[in-house]
Amino acid sequence: MKIGIDIGGTNSSWGLINDKAEIIAQGKVLTKGEQHFEDYILSLANSIKKKVSKEQLTALKGIGIGAPNGNVHTGQIEFAPNLPWKGVLPLATKMAQQFDTNVLVTNDANAAAMGEKEFGAAQGIDNFIMVTLGTGVGSGFVSNGQLIYGHDGLAGELGHVIAVRDGRPCGCGRKGCLETYTSATGIVRTAEEFLSKNKTDSPLANEVNLNSHKIFLAAKEGDKTALEIFDFTGKILGQALADAVAITSPKMIILFGGLALSGNYILTPTRKYFEENLLKIYQNKVSIEQSKLPNNTAAILGAAALIN
Amino acid sequence: MKIGIDIGGTNSSWGLINDKAEIIAQGKVLTKGEQHFEDYILSLANSIKKKVSKEQLTALKGIGIGAPNGNVHTGQIEFAPNLPWKGVLPLATKMAQQFDTNVLVTNDANAAAMGEKEFGAAQGIDNFIMVTLGTGVGSGFVSNGQLIYGHDGLAGELGHVIAVRDGRPCGCGRKGCLETYTSATGIVRTAEEFLSKNKTDSPLANEVNLNSHKIFLAAKEGDKTALEIFDFTGKILGQALADAVAITSPKMIILFGGLALSGNYILTPTRKYFEENLLKIYQNKVSIEQSKLPNNTAAILGAAALIN
Repeated sequence: MKIGIDIGGTNSSWGLINDKAEIIAQGKVLTKGEQHFEDYILSLANSIKKKVSKEQLTALKGIGIGAPNGNVHTGQIEFAPNLPWKGVLPLATKMAQQFDTNVLVTNDANAAAMGEKEFGAAQGIDNFIMVTLGTGVGSGFVSNGQLIYGHDGLAGELGHVIAVRDGRPCGCGRKGCLETYTSATGIVRTAEEFLSKNKTDSPLANEVNLNSHKIFLAAKEGDKTALEIFDFTGKILGQALADAVAITSPKMIILFGGLALSGNYILTPTRKYFEENLLKIYQNKVSIEQSKLPNNTAAILGAAALIN
Repeated sequence: MKIGIDIGGTNSSWGLINDKAEIIAQGKVLTKGEQHFEDYILSLANSIKKKVSKEQLTALKGIGIGAPNGNVHTGQIEFAPNLPWKGVLPLATKMAQQFDTNVLVTNDANAAAMGEKEFGAAQGIDNFIMVTLGTGVGSGFVSNGQLIYGHDGLAGELGHVIAVRDGRPCGCGRKGCLETYTSATGIVRTAEEFLSKNKTDSPLANEVNLNSHKIFLAAKEGDKTALEIFDFTGKILGQALADAVAITSPKMIILFGGLALSGNYILTPTRKYFEENLLKIYQNKVSIEQSKLPNNTAAILGAAALIN
């Protein structure tokens, strides 16, 4: 029995996982529901304790957590720009106090990558990149069959490579980071720019609370502006992925998270610009796929896979 | 007894290495000396056979070769933009025919990285990046103590990440690749641009055959234009390295090759812009060092280290 937790910018989902890798109980809390990190921990722990019996907790081998800027070496969340709490957060320590068990932390995209490797599209693949297009953009790089954690445990921040020099302000304090363009929130910024610049009869112009799902729905209806927004987003993402390939030369890139749910609307332009921007030696060798795992499940199972 | 060979864009150097990792014979040929790849192989083989005795060749465990776009999986050089021969070159096969021994190939920067790990600045370091600033820009990424070869054996092409979107034309057919700015030839292109744009009393304006060494010598004399050229080059390199750190989170980056011999003239601006462009979580954690190994020796020893 293990618990896997996926902490995203918006929701935190957990699952109790039995020895057959089945999720036998699950729940979620709002990540942004609490102003103080300590209260968030209590809220998360209570959500678990309500649905998991004392017997199950006694049988727990450990808790694996995927979190933005989660550091496998320290068990901390370190300077995550998309979370409500700043600085260094002692996540593993606090959760261990709640459950008296072994707690391991890694970044949310690494957890998703492990889920994909164990149960999804990357089974049997030793070199791939998992890219999460959620509130932010995260990534897990697997090379030689292993996650690249890096010297300090904080590798895989593809969302913070500079996609556009001196581009959009990012939550990290710099400008032009990939995630300001290709996250679920980044595509909304693109939509706002496109809609404010051009007179358009797009139904998106009348939306009050624009989000990536609404842009997807408009694209499905054939809205030209929505399709242009996806094309622009795919171009930035395709270019950045082509550069990443020049570093780790993967067999596959898997897109995951809210924006990836737009399917071919994001995949088609991303693949097109990706191939156009690849160094010749990599052309037509690297596939870009949408994750086939249910959105939260992959990260929960992957986080649980941290516990052996 | 092993032979290590370093094939660069300009020279190809080889060394005969005894069991104490000492180079006991060495030589070199011009990489660009032969129009046909077959003739180049003969010239390289003859250079070795002239200085290595039959007894030594009989005792040979194998030949390790570092070459631009060298593929460890296939033993081939594949589409190397900075070599005189195009397409796919069966390097391992041709050398094995000459010496009747085991031949392994990897890219030149990977070979240098192995040399650095065994004998240089990266001893005991499991996460580092080796960057070669020669005729082109190459790289070897070591993560979890292992070279990242990637799915197809062609990982580590940092020279072909796009440093400037729609920037300078590159030998690879694309535009703005890092190596068009930060290789030993790239800095000459920068110098030519700077000198043609601005009226200057720089002694470089009178040079007929400009090269990176002459720019270094001018900078040493305090020439303002030369210092600006290094500042510009360090900026592009520092920005690119900051992005690479977001992927593999190394402890150290080692600069190697012709341009790295400029020491602090390239290191100081590179470090400055690198820190300015790093994501906060990596700041003041990653050192950028000049390789301490003699320029050819590292790559020769590293190439030989492919043979166990």
